Amino acid sequence: MACGIIGIKNNPKAAELAYLGLYALQHRGQESVGVVSTDGAEFYEAKDMSLVFDVIKKGYAKITQLAGDTAIGHVRYSTAGSKKDNINNVQPLYFNDLNIGDFYIAHNGNLTNFKEIKTKLQSCGANFWTETDTEIIGHLFTRAVGSLEEKLIGSLKELNGAYSLIMLTKDSLIGIRDPRGFRPLCLGRFGESYILASETSVFNTFNLYTLNHSCKEKIAYGRDLDPGEIVLIKNDCIKSTHLPDKKHAFCIFELVYFARPDSIVFGRPVWPVRENLGRTIARKFKLDADFVTSVPDSGTPGTIGYCLESRMPFKPVIFRDHYYSKRTFIDPTQAMRDLGAELKYFPIPSEIAGKRIVVVDDSHVRGTTSKRIANYLKYFGAKWVALLFTFPPHAYSCFYGIDTPTNEELPGHSKTTDELSGELKQYGADYVGFLTIDEVVEATGLPKSEFCLACSTGEYPC
Amino acid sequence: MACGIIGIKNNPKAAELAYLGLYALQHRGQESVGVVSTDGAEFYEAKDMSLVFDVIKKGYAKITQLAGDTAIGHVRYSTAGSKKDNINNVQPLYFNDLNIGDFYIAHNGNLTNFKEIKTKLQSCGANFWTETDTEIIGHLFTRAVGSLEEKLIGSLKELNGAYSLIMLTKDSLIGIRDPRGFRPLCLGRFGESYILASETSVFNTFNLYTLNHSCKEKIAYGRDLDPGEIVLIKNDCIKSTHLPDKKHAFCIFELVYFARPDSIVFGRPVWPVRENLGRTIARKFKLDADFVTSVPDSGTPGTIGYCLESRMPFKPVIFRDHYYSKRTFIDPTQAMRDLGAELKYFPIPSEIAGKRIVVVDDSHVRGTTSKRIANYLKYFGAKWVALLFTFPPHAYSCFYGIDTPTNEELPGHSKTTDELSGELKQYGADYVGFLTIDEVVEATGLPKSEFCLACSTGEYPC
Amino acid sequence: MACGIIGIKNNPKAAELAYLGLYALQHRGQESVGVVSTDGAEFYEAKDMSLVFDVIKKGYAKITQLAGDTAIGHVRYSTAGSKKDNINNVQPLYFNDLNIGDFYIAHNGNLTNFKEIKTKLQSCGANFWTETDTEIIGHLFTRAVGSLEEKLIGSLKELNGAYSLIMLTKDSLIGIRDPRGFRPLCLGRFGESYILASETSVFNTFNLYTLNHSCKEKIAYGRDLDPGEIVLIKNDCIKSTHLPDKKHAFCIFELVYFARPDSIVFGRPVWPVRENLGRTIARKFKLDADFVTSVPDSGTPGTIGYCLESRMPFKPVIFRDHYYSKRTFIDPTQAMRDLGAELKYFPIPSEIAGKRIVVVDDSHVRGTTSKRIANYLKYFGAKWVALLFTFPPHAYSCFYGIDTPTNEELPGHSKTTDELSGELKQYGADYVGFLTIDEVVEATGLPKSEFCLACSTGEYPC
Amino acid sequence: MACGIIGIKNNPKAAELAYLGLYALQHRGQESVGVVSTDGAEFYEAKDMSLVFDVIKKGYAKITQLAGDTAIGHVRYSTAGSKKDNINNVQPLYFNDLNIGDFYIAHNGNLTNFKEIKTKLQSCGANFWTETDTEIIGHLFTRAVGSLEEKLIGSLKELNGAYSLIMLTKDSLIGIRDPRGFRPLCLGRFGESYILASETSVFNTFNLYTLNHSCKEKIAYGRDLDPGEIVLIKNDCIKSTHLPDKKHAFCIFELVYFARPDSIVFGRPVWPVRENLGRTIARKFKLDADFVTSVPDSGTPGTIGYCLESRMPFKPVIFRDHYYSKRTFIDPTQAMRDLGAELKYFPIPSEIAGKRIVVVDDSHVRGTTSKRIANYLKYFGAKWVALLFTFPPHAYSCFYGIDTPTNEELPGHSKTTDELSGELKQYGADYVGFLTIDEVVEATGLPKSEFCLACSTGEYPC
Repeated sequence: MACGIIGIKNNPKAAELAYLGLYALQHRGQESVGVVSTDGAEFYEAKDMSLVFDVIKKGYAKITQLAGDTAIGHVRYSTAGSKKDNINNVQPLYFNDLNIGDFYIAHNGNLTNFKEIKTKLQSCGANFWTETDTEIIGHLFTRAVGSLEEKLIGSLKELNGAYSLIMLTKDSLIGIRDPRGFRPLCLGRFGESYILASETSVFNTFNLYTLNHSCKEKIAYGRDLDPGEIVLIKNDCIKSTHLPDKKHAFCIFELVYFARPDSIVFGRPVWPVRENLGRTIARKFKLDADFVTSVPDSGTPGTIGYCLESRMPFKPVIFRDHYYSKRTFIDPTQAMRDLGAELKYFPIPSEIAGKRIVVVDDSHVRGTTSKRIANYLKYFGAKWVALLFTFPPHAYSCFYGIDTPTNEELPGHSKTTDELSGELKQYGADYVGFLTIDEVVEATGLPKSEFCLACSTGEYPC
Repeated sequence: MACGIIGIKNNPKAAELAYLGLYALQHRGQESVGVVSTDGAEFYEAKDMSLVFDVIKKGYAKITQLAGDTAIGHVRYSTAGSKKDNINNVQPLYFNDLNIGDFYIAHNGNLTNFKEIKTKLQSCGANFWTETDTEIIGHLFTRAVGSLEEKLIGSLKELNGAYSLIMLTKDSLIGIRDPRGFRPLCLGRFGESYILASETSVFNTFNLYTLNHSCKEKIAYGRDLDPGEIVLIKNDCIKSTHLPDKKHAFCIFELVYFARPDSIVFGRPVWPVRENLGRTIARKFKLDADFVTSVPDSGTPGTIGYCLESRMPFKPVIFRDHYYSKRTFIDPTQAMRDLGAELKYFPIPSEIAGKRIVVVDDSHVRGTTSKRIANYLKYFGAKWVALLFTFPPHAYSCFYGIDTPTNEELPGHSKTTDELSGELKQYGADYVGFLTIDEVVEATGLPKSEFCLACSTGEYPC
Repeated sequence: MACGIIGIKNNPKAAELAYLGLYALQHRGQESVGVVSTDGAEFYEAKDMSLVFDVIKKGYAKITQLAGDTAIGHVRYSTAGSKKDNINNVQPLYFNDLNIGDFYIAHNGNLTNFKEIKTKLQSCGANFWTETDTEIIGHLFTRAVGSLEEKLIGSLKELNGAYSLIMLTKDSLIGIRDPRGFRPLCLGRFGESYILASETSVFNTFNLYTLNHSCKEKIAYGRDLDPGEIVLIKNDCIKSTHLPDKKHAFCIFELVYFARPDSIVFGRPVWPVRENLGRTIARKFKLDADFVTSVPDSGTPGTIGYCLESRMPFKPVIFRDHYYSKRTFIDPTQAMRDLGAELKYFPIPSEIAGKRIVVVDDSHVRGTTSKRIANYLKYFGAKWVALLFTFPPHAYSCFYGIDTPTNEELPGHSKTTDELSGELKQYGADYVGFLTIDEVVEATGLPKSEFCLACSTGEYPC
Repeated sequence: MACGIIGIKNNPKAAELAYLGLYALQHRGQESVGVVSTDGAEFYEAKDMSLVFDVIKKGYAKITQLAGDTAIGHVRYSTAGSKKDNINNVQPLYFNDLNIGDFYIAHNGNLTNFKEIKTKLQSCGANFWTETDTEIIGHLFTRAVGSLEEKLIGSLKELNGAYSLIMLTKDSLIGIRDPRGFRPLCLGRFGESYILASETSVFNTFNLYTLNHSCKEKIAYGRDLDPGEIVLIKNDCIKSTHLPDKKHAFCIFELVYFARPDSIVFGRPVWPVRENLGRTIARKFKLDADFVTSVPDSGTPGTIGYCLESRMPFKPVIFRDHYYSKRTFIDPTQAMRDLGAELKYFPIPSEIAGKRIVVVDDSHVRGTTSKRIANYLKYFGAKWVALLFTFPPHAYSCFYGIDTPTNEELPGHSKTTDELSGELKQYGADYVGFLTIDEVVEATGLPKSEFCLACSTGEYPC
C-alpha cells in the first residue's frame, strides 16, 4: 500500500503538526487521511476520506479536538484494502492489549505473508474487521508475551515483506523499519519534540512553518532509521533496538519517482539523483532539437539534468492544470473518468508548431501519459518528438507497497523495449529511448546490492 | 469582477461543453460556477459554490439534466458582490421580459456607473435582488423599447466601464464586447456549433476533447469580437452590429498575467508576449548567476525568455504544491489562512544552498509572494538572490474587472520603486529590477494607445 | 399558499422566538422555513428547506447569527411556486426601496389577480426572480408614491384574493390582513415586545417557554387584526389604519381542520368548535356501536364531541406513528411514496376484531385516508364500520391559500354524496355520514355571511 | 441496550422488508440503524446514524444495493456503547470464522458478565474494536470448536444476562433467546419466507404491506421463541435446539411500557394488559373529575381502561407534537436540549381552565414529564389535577437492556412513594396514586415467577 506516515511526540501542537506533516507526504497517498492523538489518558481520532488540505481548510475546530502532545498520522493509497469507501480500512488502526492498553498502528508497505498469518490467527479464533494486511500486526502483538519490546520483536519476526511502521501507545511513540528497508523512515528533533516521518519533506515543511511563524524550533538533525531498527520514544528518552539483519532491498522507485524532490531518501537527496538520471540519458542519446520539455512535475528534475548536460534550452510546453485534482471520480462512468484524465495537462500551441522537441519523463508504467503527450504535440504541429525515459520499462508488479498494475496489465511485462517503442511511435513519437537498470543504479551513487529492483528485473527479495 | 464566460449554440452536448470550457477559464474565477441551458422551451440552471472540476467529477447525472442544444456559463471571482456565500450573486443572472421571455446574462468586467444607474432605476420602482453590478443590465433591457436589437443597444449605451457579456434567450445566443474592449471575448465554430468564450484556451481544450474522443469537429476558426460588437446567433444565422466607437482600452494585465498562457488575447498569443518580456528584462539587467528560477506558474514564460536571451540555465527550485487549492478557507481564523498561504510553494533545499539565483516573476501587486520566496531561498542558504519583475509595480486599483487591492493596500501606490526594492531587500533579495510600462507595451507589439494602463499610470479611460 | 407567518419586535431574542413561534405554526407549512432579523442597521437571513425543529436542533450557532431585536419568519407549503427546490421561492422575500431601504415580506394566502398584475408590471420593465404571487406586492410597493403608509395603501388596493402579510423594514414591523379576512392574523404583547402571528398557538408556546424558563414576560393580551387592518409598529409605537371595507370571507376550513386545536381563530377557540361539530353529527346520526375511534389527530376533537354527546366510549385503535414524517420523499419512485403513506398509521388488532366501530374524521378531500382506514379495520376483523365526516365533501378547489386538489382531482366535484358513500363502502365502510355546510356553520357560532364556503358551495368571494 | 432486531430468510425483497420491519421496531431504539444482507456469496452492509424512515425516504437506490434473499437488521438505543457517534458500535456487528466464514450478530439485551469475559479474551490476545458488550459473543464463537451448533452452544453458555440474538451467515439465519427470556423474540412465516423479530408489530406491518400491495403472502402464524431456544434456518429447513433451562425472568416493563401497543409479547397482547392496568387503578382510586386525560401516547391504553371502568369521559388535552423528533440534539448546549423537551407536548387551554382532571401515565422513572404536565395544567387554570401511574415508582436500574438511569439518578431509589407524591404536588398535582407491583403482575395474567421485576423490587435474576 503506497502510504505516508508521521509521528510527533512532546509537542503541544502534535495533531496540528501531524496534519502539516501529512500534507508534505500527500503525494504518497490521496485516498484517506487519519490522525490519532493522545494526552496520556484518552485517545482522539479523526479519519477522513479526503485530502489533507481539505481537512486543514475546515480547520482548527476539528484539529484542536485532537488533544495531547503526541500524535500519529497516515495518508493512504489503497492496494490491499479493496473496498475504497470502507472507513474501517482508514489507518491508524486501533487495537487494545490487556497490559499495554489501547494502541494504534500506521503502516507503509505491503506484507507478503499476510494471508498465511491471517489464516493461522483465525484458526486460533482471532477476528478481523478490516481488509488491510496491517491488521495482522496488531493481532500478533496482543498474542505475543513479555515486555513491550519483547512483544514487538516477537510479532515483527513473523512478518515478511515491506513495513515502515509508526505505533502509538498511551506513553510511547514507536518507529519501526523492516530489516530489508524497502520503504524510508526518518527521525528528527524539533525543539524538544521528536518527529518520525516517511520523508524529510516533512522536516522542510516544519522548518518553513517555524520560519513563517517566527518560532525558534528547527529540525536540529534528521537521520534515516536503519533497516531493522526499532526506535522507542517514551517521555524524553529514546532507545533503539534492532531486528536480525537481512539483505537490504531499498525501493529504487522511491528515488526515481515516488519521493518528493525536496526529500533525502536512503541518505541521498532526491533532486540531484534525478538530475543525474537526466544527465546520463543526455549523454546516452545525443539528440538535436529546438528545446527540451518535461512531463510535469515528476519528469522535471530529469529534464533539467538533460538540459544542463546537453546545453539545449528548456521550454515547458505542457502544463499541469492547477485545477485538476487526483481524487477519485464520484461519477462512475468511464466517459467521465476519461474526461478527467484529459483535463490533467494543457499544451501551449504557439510554442509547439514546427518545432523539434525532446520530452523527458521519469518512467514508463502503463505508457498512457506518454502516448497522450506525443499525440498532443503532433496535433499542435510539432515537427519531431523524442520520448526519453530515465528508467527501464516497468516489467513486474510491485508487492512491497508501490501501487503498480498487475503483470497482465503492464505492457513491459510481455513486450520488448523495441515493441514498446513501436507502440509509442504509433502515437506520434519519432524517437524513443530508455535508461537500463544498471545506468539508473549508477546514477544513484549507491551499490546495486542495496536495492530492490524487482519492478525491472523480476528478482523479488522475498 | 474577474470572471470567465462561455456560450455554446447548436450542440447536443451544450451543457457538457460549457463546463469543459469553463474548466479552461477557471483561472479567471474560482469562487462559483453557473451554467444555464435551454432547449428552446424551458431553461435549466445549475449553480455551485465550487470549482468546475468538482462539478465535473460529480458527473453526468447533474450535467445531463441541463438539457438543450444551447448553454451559457460563468466562473466568478467576486469583487462587486461582497457577500461571498450569497447564492443570488452567482451568474448567469435570470431576468424576464414580457416580449423576449426569460433571459440570462453572464458578465465579465465592472461597470463604473453602476450606482448611479441603480439609484435611477430604483427611483422608478425597480427591485434589486443581487449585489452585482450586472443586474442593472437586465433592468435596463426590460425597460428599453423596440426589437431585441434595439433594446440591447438602448440599454448598453447607458453603461460605462468594462463589459464582455454573453446572453441567452430561448432562441438566441448573444455576445457583446464593450466599445473600449477592456476584456477579451472571442468567437469560434465547432462543427455546426458556435462558441463564444473569454479566451481561446477554450478552443484548445475543445480541440483536445475531439482528438481524445476521435470526433470530427474542430474549431474551424476563431476571432476576437471587435470592441463594441454585438453578435446575435439565432438558429444558424449569425449577425453583427456595433455600438458607437470609443477609444480602445485593452487591459494590458490580461497579456502580462491574467490570461492562460495557451490563449490568444487581443490578437496576440500570450506565451510569446510573456517570453518577450523575459527577454527584455534580461537585456535590461545583465546579471550573473548560477541559474534562473521562476515563481510558478505565472512567472514561468518570462523566466524562459530570460534564459533564452541570457543563455543562463533554468532550474525550478520553487514548486507549486499540487495539493494546494486556491478555494476559500472554511476556517475563519487568520492563523489558518496564513497556514494556507504558506502551503502553496515548497523549495528544493539541495539545489539552493550556496547558489546565486535570479528569480523572475510577472508582477508586484502586494509583494507578499516575492518576500516569501526571497526569504525561503535565503533560509535554505542561497548566496545571492535577484528578484526581477516583468511589469512595473502596481500603483492604482483596477475598476474594470481585475481584482486588485485598494490604493491604500497597494504598496506601489505610495512608495517609489526604490522604496519597494528596499522592502524586498529586507526579506533577503540582493537585487531588484522592474520593467517600465513603456518597455512592457513595446514587448507586446501593440501600440500604446490601444491599452488601458491605469494600474500602472493611474490614467483611467472612463 | 398554505403558510404560517410570524413577527417579533423589541425583543433581544427576536430570532430565537421567531423559530419557536414558527414551530407552533409548522402545521401550516412543512416545506421550507425562513427567518430574517434586523438590528436597525443590517439584515440577517436564514432559509432552509427543512422543518423548524431540525433548524432548532442544529442550534444556537446558526440562530444567534440572526442579530437584532426584530425578526419575521415564514413556513411554507408550496402552491403557487411550483419548483419545490427553488430556494428563491423561500420567504420572507427581499426587496429594496429607494426611500424605505431594504424590506422583506412574508405572506399567507393566494392572490387571485396575480397574473394580470405581473404582466402589467412586466410591461413597465419589472423583473421577477421568484415564482411566487407574493413578489408582485414588493414591486407594487416600490412603484407606489408617498409615505410608507401611503405606499402600502396604494399597493394593497391593487390586490385581490387572500393576504395576511408581515413586513419588515429597518425600523418597522408591519402586519396586514386583507379586507375580506380570509386568513387569520393576530397581535399580542410579550413583556415589552410585540408579536404578530398567524395563530394564537404561538402565544401558548411563548407562555410555556416563559413558564419553563421562569421568565416574567407573558402574552398580556392577544387580538385578531380586523379584516383590512394595517398595523405599523415602530419603536414602541403601534398604529392602525384600515383599507376600505369588503364583505368578510373567513375561511371556514381554518376552524374545521387547518388551525391548531389550541388556537383561537376568528375569535373562536378551535377545540370547542370542533367538539361541537362532533356533537352535532352524533345527534344527526344516532348509531349503535362498541366504541368510537378517530382519525388522528385532526379527527380527534370531533370524535370526543361525538362520545360526549352519544355517551359511547372512546377507543383509539388507529395510531399515528411518531416516526412518520410528512416531509417530501427524496426517492422519486411512486412505490416509495406509497410506502410512505402506508407507514403513517398503525392499528391495534387486538381491539378491532369482532367490534362495531364508529370512525369520526374531519373532512373528505380526496378520500384516500378514509378508504385506507376502513380497509384496515375490516382486514383486522371489525364487524361493522361507520365513517362520519364533520364537513360536507370538498367539491371545489380553494384559490385563497388552502392547498386542495384541482376540481378534476376532487371526487366531490363530480359525484353526489351518495356516490361518494358508495365508493367508501367498497373499501369496507358499512355506514357513511356527512354534515351539511349549514350544520357546520351553525356549530361555529358565527353568522354564515362572515365565511368563505367556496370549497363546499363553489361561491367564490372574489 | 434497548434495541430492536429483525431477520428475514428466503425473500427476494429481504433488505426492503428488513427496513420495513425495523420501522415497526423504531420505538426500541432511535440512535442508529443497520442492515446486512447476503446472496449466499457476498454480504452487503448499510449503517446509518439516523431514523429508519429517513433511510426509507432516501430510498430504493440505497436499499436495492443490499442484494440477496436474506437480511438481518438492528435499531439501537445506546447504553453499553457510550460514544454515541462511533460508527463502529452500529450493529449488526461483523465477524469472520475460519470455517463458517463471515457472520454478523444483532443483539437486544445486556450481558452482565461482559467485562470478565472481555478481560479473559484479551489475556488470550483478542482485539476489541467496538465498545459494545455484543462483541464478546463473536470472539467466543470463533474460539469455540465443533459444528456451527456446537460452537453456538459452547459460546452462549459462557454468557450471563439478557440476550435475544439474530445471527447471519452465508447460508443460515439464526435466532436465539436467552434461557431466562428477558427480552422477547418471535418467529413467523411470510409466504415462503421466515421472519424473526423482536415484536409482532413487525408482522402487523408486513400484513398491511401485503394488503396495500395486493400481495398474497401473509404471516401465517407467529410464535415466541422459547427461553433458551436456538432456531437455525438453513435453506428451507428450520431446526430448534435448547440451552439448559434457567428460571424465567420476562421483563415486565415490556408489557407495561416498552413494547408497541399492537404487539403480542410473552404470549400476551399488549393493549388489553395496559387497558387492564387502567381498569385496576380506576378501581383502586375512586376519584371524581370532569374528565380523564393521558400522557400521550404511552399512557393512552391505561387511560382508556380507566375511562371504561370509571365511566368518566376521555378528553385528550395534552397533545404530542408531530413535528417533535426524539433524535439527539446537534446543538450541545443544555439550553437547546431543554427547549427540545419543552416542545414535545402542547396543551389545549380552552379545555383545561376550571376543570378537575385525572391524568393517567404508565410509569414514574425520573418524574420529569409528570411534573411538566401537572405544571402546564395548573398554569392553564385546571382546578384540580390527579396523577395516576399504572406502575410503582422505578427504584432500581435495569442491567438487562432497558435504558434506565443509575440508582443515584432515580428518585424512586432513595425516596418513599409518599415523598415522591410530595414532590409532584409541588408542581401542581393535587392527588397522586401508584399501582403496586403485585397489582401490576395480576393485571398481566401471568404468574409472578415468570417475571423480572428488578426495576421495582431490586431482586436481580442474575
